[in-house]
Amino acid sequence: MPTPPPPPPPNPASAPPKNPTAAILIIGDEILSGRTRDSNMHHLAGELTRIGIDLREVRMVPDDQSAIVAALNALRHAWDHVFTSGGIGPTHDDITADAVAASFGVAIGIRDDARDLLARHYAAQGLDFNESRQRMARIPDGATLIDNPISVAPGFSLGNVHVMAGVPRIFEAMAALILPGLKAGTPVESRNWRVNLGEGTIAADFAALAAEYPDLTMGSYPFSRNGAFGTTLVIRGRDRQRLEAAYARLMSLFPGEPA
Amino acid sequence: MPTPPPPPPPNPASAPPKNPTAAILIIGDEILSGRTRDSNMHHLAGELTRIGIDLREVRMVPDDQSAIVAALNALRHAWDHVFTSGGIGPTHDDITADAVAASFGVAIGIRDDARDLLARHYAAQGLDFNESRQRMARIPDGATLIDNPISVAPGFSLGNVHVMAGVPRIFEAMAALILPGLKAGTPVESRNWRVNLGEGTIAADFAALAAEYPDLTMGSYPFSRNGAFGTTLVIRGRDRQRLEAAYARLMSLFPGEPA
Repeated sequence: MPTPPPPPPPNPASAPPKNPTAAILIIGDEILSGRTRDSNMHHLAGELTRIGIDLREVRMVPDDQSAIVAALNALRHAWDHVFTSGGIGPTHDDITADAVAASFGVAIGIRDDARDLLARHYAAQGLDFNESRQRMARIPDGATLIDNPISVAPGFSLGNVHVMAGVPRIFEAMAALILPGLKAGTPVESRNWRVNLGEGTIAADFAALAAEYPDLTMGSYPFSRNGAFGTTLVIRGRDRQRLEAAYARLMSLFPGEPA
Repeated sequence: MPTPPPPPPPNPASAPPKNPTAAILIIGDEILSGRTRDSNMHHLAGELTRIGIDLREVRMVPDDQSAIVAALNALRHAWDHVFTSGGIGPTHDDITADAVAASFGVAIGIRDDARDLLARHYAAQGLDFNESRQRMARIPDGATLIDNPISVAPGFSLGNVHVMAGVPRIFEAMAALILPGLKAGTPVESRNWRVNLGEGTIAADFAALAAEYPDLTMGSYPFSRNGAFGTTLVIRGRDRQRLEAAYARLMSLFPGEPA
């Protein structure tokens, strides 16, 4: 193997500032029971990566106020943003808004603007705006509403906590509305190289390469396809020059193809 | 609506003992970056429900030792069992075994029985049993191995923590081997009733029913199918007689069909 060129030095002066951080809290017995497979975490993880917000932790808890409050208190103090999914409908098991109010120690009650939105919506449908539906206008004091373009009942942001519906179509619509308003970071880009070698074969050289580029992260993911085993090697980082340099080195180390 | 029959009284003397509890810890940058969609949580959630072990919390963290140790310390003290997924391969980003050793404060080193298993496997394939592959025989002191019928490299149980591979086929095989050895509980059964009514229409009567059966949990899940909206009402519980009584009441409250 020819002697590789030395890597370009990291340039701390031009290094991008730290990215904002985030956590996701998925709320619901139906997820923990295995009845429903969550898709909101995977969707939002990809969207956050795209805009340079680093997802650092996910938790999933049941429809239980003390469990929700404990998770909220841990996550909202640890990370810049917390996104929640689930528990904001009209039924007795929808307790997320109350849990958020309890976590922040603020009051919660029916808010005029949310009630008016919902009242108009149900009137237009000829449906009774009953007490259960009015529950969906209960918003903690100090929150900002998040529009719901699908079924009207709003989510809300309070401090750094963004409360969204669990129904995937509504969750995704709400995320699309609030993410553009958040301070973006420098997106983490990745380069993927697929090799027909086992992880154990590439591990030593791959670790040495990772050690040369401590500012990048490198991971290996085994796969099997049509009975053949191989490994996808992934390099991630925010400095494109360093990323391309490391990727060129990776391609020279092992025969493979872009993945 | 006819007056409903009174519900049968709960029978505390015959109430099943509390179920064992569990948490799942999913480890890996590839999950949090949105590159890979985790499937192990949903698989294991269903298996645990089937044998009466209550899944109470899930966390997902990156390939970062301090994050893994913090999550392990919280979860293993809070719940009866912790199942981990990911980070036990031969590459530098596989740090789960070390994190488990650090969490328990025990030593970790190459273990003879695990090394012998792996040495035979690679010899049979004509592959070098190199230093990276030997890393997969590093097991915390005091652990019990979990067989890997797919690719040999073992998982392990230490105390109440069960460490499994992230590759779904291997994770599922390891889960199938260890779950039968755990103390089972009384499976939580569910009855599902699908109605062509919105959540806001059924909420009040459904909440009243839930209040009559505090020993059961009741949840509602909106859906849309072919442009029609509806709600699936789910009752869960461990006492089948109470469950059937509540389900009969539910069927009499709203027109619908089993889901």
